[in-house]
Amino acid sequence: MNRKIILYILTRLLAVESVIITLSGLVSLLYGDQDYMSFFISAAISMVLSLIIYPFVRNSEKSLGKREGYIVVSLVWVIFSVFGALPFYVSGAIPSYTDAFFETMSGFTTTGASILNDIESLSHGLLFWRSITQWLGGMGIIVMALAIFPILGIGGMQLFVAEVPGPTPDKLHPRIKGTAKRLWGIYILLTAIETLLLYFGGMTLFDAINHSFTTMATGGYSTKQLSIAYYNSPYIEYVISLFMFLAGMNFTLSFFAMRLKFSKIYKNEEFRWYLIGTIAITVLIAFFLVIHQGLGIEKAFRDSLFQVVSILTTTGYATADYMLWPPFVVVIIFMLMFIGGSAGSTGGGPKVMRVMLLLKNSYFEFKRIMHPKALIPVRMNNRAVDPKIIANIQAFIVVYIIIFVIGTILMSSMGLDLDTSMGAVIACLGNIGPGIAGVGPANNFFAIPDSGKWLLSVFMLIGRLELFTVLVLFTPHFWKK
Amino acid sequence: MNRKIILYILTRLLAVESVIITLSGLVSLLYGDQDYMSFFISAAISMVLSLIIYPFVRNSEKSLGKREGYIVVSLVWVIFSVFGALPFYVSGAIPSYTDAFFETMSGFTTTGASILNDIESLSHGLLFWRSITQWLGGMGIIVMALAIFPILGIGGMQLFVAEVPGPTPDKLHPRIKGTAKRLWGIYILLTAIETLLLYFGGMTLFDAINHSFTTMATGGYSTKQLSIAYYNSPYIEYVISLFMFLAGMNFTLSFFAMRLKFSKIYKNEEFRWYLIGTIAITVLIAFFLVIHQGLGIEKAFRDSLFQVVSILTTTGYATADYMLWPPFVVVIIFMLMFIGGSAGSTGGGPKVMRVMLLLKNSYFEFKRIMHPKALIPVRMNNRAVDPKIIANIQAFIVVYIIIFVIGTILMSSMGLDLDTSMGAVIACLGNIGPGIAGVGPANNFFAIPDSGKWLLSVFMLIGRLELFTVLVLFTPHFWKK
Repeated sequence: MNRKIILYILTRLLAVESVIITLSGLVSLLYGDQDYMSFFISAAISMVLSLIIYPFVRNSEKSLGKREGYIVVSLVWVIFSVFGALPFYVSGAIPSYTDAFFETMSGFTTTGASILNDIESLSHGLLFWRSITQWLGGMGIIVMALAIFPILGIGGMQLFVAEVPGPTPDKLHPRIKGTAKRLWGIYILLTAIETLLLYFGGMTLFDAINHSFTTMATGGYSTKQLSIAYYNSPYIEYVISLFMFLAGMNFTLSFFAMRLKFSKIYKNEEFRWYLIGTIAITVLIAFFLVIHQGLGIEKAFRDSLFQVVSILTTTGYATADYMLWPPFVVVIIFMLMFIGGSAGSTGGGPKVMRVMLLLKNSYFEFKRIMHPKALIPVRMNNRAVDPKIIANIQAFIVVYIIIFVIGTILMSSMGLDLDTSMGAVIACLGNIGPGIAGVGPANNFFAIPDSGKWLLSVFMLIGRLELFTVLVLFTPHFWKK
Repeated sequence: MNRKIILYILTRLLAVESVIITLSGLVSLLYGDQDYMSFFISAAISMVLSLIIYPFVRNSEKSLGKREGYIVVSLVWVIFSVFGALPFYVSGAIPSYTDAFFETMSGFTTTGASILNDIESLSHGLLFWRSITQWLGGMGIIVMALAIFPILGIGGMQLFVAEVPGPTPDKLHPRIKGTAKRLWGIYILLTAIETLLLYFGGMTLFDAINHSFTTMATGGYSTKQLSIAYYNSPYIEYVISLFMFLAGMNFTLSFFAMRLKFSKIYKNEEFRWYLIGTIAITVLIAFFLVIHQGLGIEKAFRDSLFQVVSILTTTGYATADYMLWPPFVVVIIFMLMFIGGSAGSTGGGPKVMRVMLLLKNSYFEFKRIMHPKALIPVRMNNRAVDPKIIANIQAFIVVYIIIFVIGTILMSSMGLDLDTSMGAVIACLGNIGPGIAGVGPANNFFAIPDSGKWLLSVFMLIGRLELFTVLVLFTPHFWKK
């Protein structure tokens, strides 16, 4: 185990975080808020620590194995949250460090679950920092590092694989740095376009930037306690629905879209499931809202679309309290929480591709029963999928469910009821934000016991890094020579 | 497709059912109940129909393919329920045919979900018929047929495979008839011993027989509205706990036990998980009941043991309303509903063996991540398990979850809340009986809308025949030449 290289990368990334915290302090200064010093103190703590360790690890051997990759990626998210919580804590805006850590981990992992009861009371700097944690986390801290500097003389492949696991091997682009840069290019471009559209729709520039950050990250932090419902603007709701949908798409497809290769997009099987599924469920729920809640057709469609896209992409914005909708709709939305965005998007959850391949494979299993000796592979985009990938996806889903079950049991042992426990766990594990019942969109995570907040923070991280990257660290064979 | 042989087997089995209905009528006559004629009418209807069709199919070719096997097995359970509902309906004890069908399907599939609000008002004949549906269904209608008569000149292998799918191929005993007879021998013996023990414990002979039938079938129908709580007897509760546990064991192991080969039992890996899991969860829940409900240690242990075994084996008897226990315990019990008894037992659900292999395989997946090129098989009883079996189990669980999700959505579309919808679906799909919330042990299924009762009846059948046997009939490739 090359411990020095691990520390070397972590300290350099901590220095980067320190710079971004300083930037947020400047935002507070710019808007005349009184708390800017707490940013500079937090940034200084991070920077000093980084500088103290740096000389010891500077001369580390610049090679990175698989195991070091897993450790770096898991730890960098923890460290970013540990130090990223400082501005909230030092400023006194969030008096409990547990709460501050939860809010920050929820930011970086783009979960969007909040403990804040009065978001509007936060300074501009803190709101900006809160949004930027999501924006950085959305594309991935490592992917950012790979894009902005030559990752310290090493290839970075191991890091990329560990942070962007995904169900298929085709993202293992040989030129990692090029891929990372291209992804960030599209990400920045879409964020900029959304900012303009929201600004023209009547948002302040500050709100437009913040919401674009958290939309494109499928994060869901808002600068308003009421979330997007605050603006009461159909235009804004449609714009955000569109960009949530784009953020939940594979970014490679957005790249094709920019080159106007639309047929390539529609030929992508995962995209078709994502698009058709979104439309079908939106129409179904809208129908129920018209019949049972007496909403007008446009309003029902808009509310349904917004909530379906918000949950499916794991963004977590709210324009309505879906817990007040008929039980049928609540159940559908709860089930959507187990799907997530597309592979290669900023969305969380198990991903459309995994769910799609599982469903297809199950269907093919019936064929296999009738013809037990035939080899019947699952096909995707007209190609046979390696059975090893199917096996891995099945194991992924089983582990996902095991964590969900254990998490629900542990949360209920703290006295929460079944629905709140299930809701809290899937909202965090799927990086969604709001859950159901006691952690539904009209509530938040403030009332969860501290031990529950730490546990849920772990689930956010496990979910964001798609289970295995984090969990493998806790198996004995990982540490065997 | 050999349609004649299908009809031939079905009509002969219908005649057998007619005889058993007549027997139940004799029970009513014996106890002086007034409703005996309704049994004879029901039996006559079944017998006449059987006799009308018989001449047309008598000369069918005595060969049975795989497809015919699946069709016969699926249909025989439907037909037994269609005609088995007649005594309830003709006697007027259950005025709605939907309810009578639900109660009968719930009987044959050993689910034990009831629509009856006053069980004690039923005649002895109806109570006996209700219990015997479970007892017959417990070991399997086809297994019964194979045991009691040379199955009409054909091997019966295809039928056995379709009715007793199980996760491993080792139950494909070449001498099906011998296996079937041995299974029934143990089944009858254990039922007789339990009857004696309950009778000595103070039950009437009638109650003792009925409860032994429904214990050994892991069915859960009681002759009392309060279920086992009615007797208020620790002795009876411990006896029933023991026999529920035995009924949830692989019957092959009971066979070893009778030959005093206990080491063979303990060496069986599934049994160890089943035993240790039962003890661990019992102790955990008992601990919570002592701390949070203030129960005495013996009472807490007994209540916990009874409920854990009742749910895990999918029997569904109640001695306490677990919905009144702390949320943590409710969550654990709800999760137990997704496990089920051992393979080769009369229990329902996905089975301990499947859950065990899935958990082991998930753990091994971490090894595979670190060593992607190595072949790392899952082992059971010190032997490598064929990856095809693992793939099949994974597909089974995925299909199980899909049905659970679709079922929950459909039930909620009828206006039931999330917990009641989930509870009703898993209680029926897992052949358990009581669920949670609105269908918890203190409630029953009477208030479910008719469409819901039909849907849940389908789920009972799908669950009892372990998904694929029924579902494969609804795929296009099953019907292709």
